Amino acid sequence: MEIGFIENIDKKSKPNQNQLGFGQHFTDYMFEMDYIDGEGWVNPTIKPYAPISLDPSAMVFHYGQSVFEGLKAYRTKDDRVLLFRPEKNIERLNKSNARMCIPEIDKELILKAISELVKVDKDWIPNQKGTSLYIRPFVFATDYYVGVRQSHNYKFLIILSPVGAYYSEGFNPVKIFIEQQYVRAVKGGVGEAKTAGNYAASIKAQSEAKEKGFSQVLWLDGAEHKYIEEVGAMNIFIMIGEEILTPELTGSILDGVTRRSTIELLRASGYQVTERKITIDEIIEAQFNGRLKEVFGTGTAAVISPVGEMWFEGQKILINGGEVGNVSQKLYDQLTGIQTGDVEDEFGWTIDISK
Amino acid sequence: MEIGFIENIDKKSKPNQNQLGFGQHFTDYMFEMDYIDGEGWVNPTIKPYAPISLDPSAMVFHYGQSVFEGLKAYRTKDDRVLLFRPEKNIERLNKSNARMCIPEIDKELILKAISELVKVDKDWIPNQKGTSLYIRPFVFATDYYVGVRQSHNYKFLIILSPVGAYYSEGFNPVKIFIEQQYVRAVKGGVGEAKTAGNYAASIKAQSEAKEKGFSQVLWLDGAEHKYIEEVGAMNIFIMIGEEILTPELTGSILDGVTRRSTIELLRASGYQVTERKITIDEIIEAQFNGRLKEVFGTGTAAVISPVGEMWFEGQKILINGGEVGNVSQKLYDQLTGIQTGDVEDEFGWTIDISK
Ligand SMILES: Cc1ncc(COP(=O)(O)O)c(C=O)c1O
Ligand SMILES: Cc1ncc(COP(=O)(O)O)c(C=O)c1O
Repeated sequence: MEIGFIENIDKKSKPNQNQLGFGQHFTDYMFEMDYIDGEGWVNPTIKPYAPISLDPSAMVFHYGQSVFEGLKAYRTKDDRVLLFRPEKNIERLNKSNARMCIPEIDKELILKAISELVKVDKDWIPNQKGTSLYIRPFVFATDYYVGVRQSHNYKFLIILSPVGAYYSEGFNPVKIFIEQQYVRAVKGGVGEAKTAGNYAASIKAQSEAKEKGFSQVLWLDGAEHKYIEEVGAMNIFIMIGEEILTPELTGSILDGVTRRSTIELLRASGYQVTERKITIDEIIEAQFNGRLKEVFGTGTAAVISPVGEMWFEGQKILINGGEVGNVSQKLYDQLTGIQTGDVEDEFGWTIDISK
Repeated sequence: MEIGFIENIDKKSKPNQNQLGFGQHFTDYMFEMDYIDGEGWVNPTIKPYAPISLDPSAMVFHYGQSVFEGLKAYRTKDDRVLLFRPEKNIERLNKSNARMCIPEIDKELILKAISELVKVDKDWIPNQKGTSLYIRPFVFATDYYVGVRQSHNYKFLIILSPVGAYYSEGFNPVKIFIEQQYVRAVKGGVGEAKTAGNYAASIKAQSEAKEKGFSQVLWLDGAEHKYIEEVGAMNIFIMIGEEILTPELTGSILDGVTRRSTIELLRASGYQVTERKITIDEIIEAQFNGRLKEVFGTGTAAVISPVGEMWFEGQKILINGGEVGNVSQKLYDQLTGIQTGDVEDEFGWTIDISK
């Protein structure tokens, strides 16, 4: 399908690269496409970034039928533009769509839309260390109808935001609160879909943890409150002895692109990585026995986020003396190196869209 | 706080009362109020029903931080306008707000907003049997920010829709599918809040059940898949022998206004009503022993919805020969009678807003 283009004749001034923060600035353009009942996905268009107008009865406001994605574009030293494994995000978008009863979107069209949009907004891609252009595709229900059912019409948008570090800590160890009261998702629910409601459900626990001085919460499984699941916007890895563990995908956590890449990178470097159920008790025991080496989160926003402390039932679990561990550091360097084009991409993970 | 008023000089024509359906038609006016960071809730206004314009980065599209309510206004034979226990919906709205980290809204202001809005749109209230004016208050996050946290700005709207029967069956027994694979909510989650994500999470199970010929699904608890919870947009009651059971409020189901009213009505009529955990097994056993008398759902949309069949693991549980039971019928007559002013309101549940 051809992507239409409407020029923006009223461009914004760009923010200071040193004060980007996360998700606060948006570029000059956006991509928009509609799903019309009986017609399918129509009118893919790159157009000036602008407000959208919706009837107050639009289903998204009431029943939250929606999905989103998050990936990044990086500007290399020699001014090329790289995307990191976009096909994984595109696949996941359609998996989320399937779970949320939203019509599938053509994979190639999504990749083309992302690539062309990033290209017209190329000047917005920052290039300082730790910065990138965050890409946010999202889909939501637009039927003008009040009543619970699947919508017959949808909107698909892509917006772009030049970003710095996701956590104010930067690449420094974060403190994590292990949540025992609130639950984010449970098997049989929509935890593995990247849909709005999962995040809305996380806000209260997260804000209570923030008040107590923690960056994030680590969720436990919804049924038994025994197994670790994931952190706010990251998957979690635990190094015990020489083995690196991460929770297996059971349906309640997100199948993270950074998680997958981390597993592959670690295995390529000779580490033993195991995906399985992990109880909070065995983490506590490992720390007690001095076998808990490192803990880190993985996600597009923060890439690798070393965990310095976890708190459980009022007890501190100190990890690696609260310092960044070797594995975390190496992974961060490797991953961000590949993403920004500074390290050779042996895995073929990046796509150069500047050509 | 004074509620502002902007007149609508371009009124719509009203739909045929015999073909209202549910949630498809909207009136001439809406209520709108904004929460501005640092200022609180400001500018309450009744204004022409019109689209709302939002930046594509508005948090509601991405993270679904939102709550809603649903209640009804009825027009009596002598042309008065009654609301049914609006204070319960208003309380629940603020309970949902608290769970979703949305700032509380002044109770009296909400009641005033609903009353004044219904009054300016009074001509839209249908008066045929089974019809009413559905009132939909809703709140959602409006920060222009991409990143998971609580929003600092919100919009609160109330829209109105003249409605007929919620189920196409009308007041006839529905067929219900007992869901074993998908889960709607779990203790510790947001199941007891009336928030968008709970409904998004229900769509797939509901649409699969529809395809198999069922009206709705009956959810089981998220942890053990053993206890019955609630139906799509209704709470559930089971009459076994002379006792009427309904699941207790454990945090994962909605504290329904119709549920509460049903319990009070039944008790006032001398029935024994018990709120407790109910296993699916004991329902099957009761049916086997011939002690399962009636099953019905309760909710604002359908008021009382008799259940004729429930299906579990491919087996049909037939209830009362698939016919409307006496208790269901009596409750429906009493409740709709009180709501429409045809039956004396001994409980003081209705508020006359036409004065
Ligand atoms: C809930 C959740 N878990 C994990 C992740 C990490 O996934 P990815 O590595 O694909 O960014 C994210 C977000 O991006 C997330 O939202
Ligand atoms: C999930 C759910 N359960 C139960 C109910 C019934 O509650 P009420 O009687 O207040 O309408 C509703 C809806 O209105 C609902 O959405």
